[in-house]
Amino acid sequence: MQIASILITGANRGIGYELVRQLAAANPSPDFIYAGCRNPDGADKLKELAQKHPNVKILKIAIGDESSYQTAVQQVSQDIGDRGLNVLFNNAGILTNRKFHEVTAEEMRKDYEVDTIGPLMLTKAFYPLLKKAADSSQVKGLSCTRAAVLNMTSGLGLINSNTSGGFYPYRPAKIALNMITKSMSIDFKSDGIMAVIIDPGWVSTDMGGKNASATPSQCVDGILSVMAKLGEEENGKVKKWNGQTMEY
Amino acid sequence: MQIASILITGANRGIGYELVRQLAAANPSPDFIYAGCRNPDGADKLKELAQKHPNVKILKIAIGDESSYQTAVQQVSQDIGDRGLNVLFNNAGILTNRKFHEVTAEEMRKDYEVDTIGPLMLTKAFYPLLKKAADSSQVKGLSCTRAAVLNMTSGLGLINSNTSGGFYPYRPAKIALNMITKSMSIDFKSDGIMAVIIDPGWVSTDMGGKNASATPSQCVDGILSVMAKLGEEENGKVKKWNGQTMEY
Repeated sequence: MQIASILITGANRGIGYELVRQLAAANPSPDFIYAGCRNPDGADKLKELAQKHPNVKILKIAIGDESSYQTAVQQVSQDIGDRGLNVLFNNAGILTNRKFHEVTAEEMRKDYEVDTIGPLMLTKAFYPLLKKAADSSQVKGLSCTRAAVLNMTSGLGLINSNTSGGFYPYRPAKIALNMITKSMSIDFKSDGIMAVIIDPGWVSTDMGGKNASATPSQCVDGILSVMAKLGEEENGKVKKWNGQTMEY
Repeated sequence: MQIASILITGANRGIGYELVRQLAAANPSPDFIYAGCRNPDGADKLKELAQKHPNVKILKIAIGDESSYQTAVQQVSQDIGDRGLNVLFNNAGILTNRKFHEVTAEEMRKDYEVDTIGPLMLTKAFYPLLKKAADSSQVKGLSCTRAAVLNMTSGLGLINSNTSGGFYPYRPAKIALNMITKSMSIDFKSDGIMAVIIDPGWVSTDMGGKNASATPSQCVDGILSVMAKLGEEENGKVKKWNGQTMEY
């Protein structure tokens, strides 16, 4: 897959970090891999990667703090100019697991802020750069090579997969992001920008825990294969790391 | 349909008002029809109804203001005591229609607060009364006659029906409420409380506008017929006013 530039949020750990690591090691590797994280100073593993791979650039993006988005856009613009940004991968998220009788309004707001509003507003901020990438691309149609927004969901965020209840703050915030992605897939199409929902499955990260069914390495290996094949048919759909198309 | 008690939010206009009106005119009519609205002082049409029908009780419920929920619970408790509340119909909602390039984080928060968090927190507040109704009911299984939470969605809140994009604050807030209803349908089942998503279709209310395909009267007539038939098979599903089961 030939992606000239990609930005990944929540890149300091878990699936986000692994995406940056595998993309940096890939051949060909993107010209620019932007690793967004809340606190670059404390992102030691990312700093190591960036030292080895000069195409890895660490960006401060604090999801929920819109002022950090504009600063990030300016930094990326200075590097890539008129080539634009090919892929924005909204990977950052939080999972608050509360049962019905425990959940508070404040917990509901927090997950929505980070898991739903954050990716939407970040996409708004980067839209001009995505549009530039789509406009300047040699390829037509929809693809990650041209321009794409990828939004990370979760099996817990799929309403048709909800057979166990609970997770009151997290599930609605993630299905809401799925809905937003579906709207984006329609609204962005004429600009040549794709929008796809990525389901990473259950992964042994800090969020997923030890009993998960795949390692971050296996999951990301799968996601990168999926990304390479995404096109018009997958626009607005849920694609799982193993290539399966999931019901919303 | 024999429902002893029902609470409807957003009852001062549109579908909410029509639900109260038709239930008050029904034979048999519920013993208690609680008409929740933000500002009872200004709810002239509701006041007229309540004067004609002593079983219509106006309650101040300001969605988003949790303190108003507890006061409402206390008022209802005093009336119905150990019989509990049979049906909580979360009908109140707002629709903010913004395109991608216009939408703000604040607009996203507002619709989520009213359309998603509000119904969840109101259901938490009334849960003990719903449980009392389920426990004291002569009938077993799931039904509106026993105990139910009905959450109002919209065709715009169904991800599988989203073919036109846009409506960034409203669509995700409504699909989030659908997800919450799905979780409720699983979590409440062992207590004998049903949870169903109601899709009113496109109705000529202040929200729906003049071009809508059904009048409030037609829509509510349909919803009441649907409610009479709801049972275990419909638990957690989307039921449209005309009886159709919709995809999420």
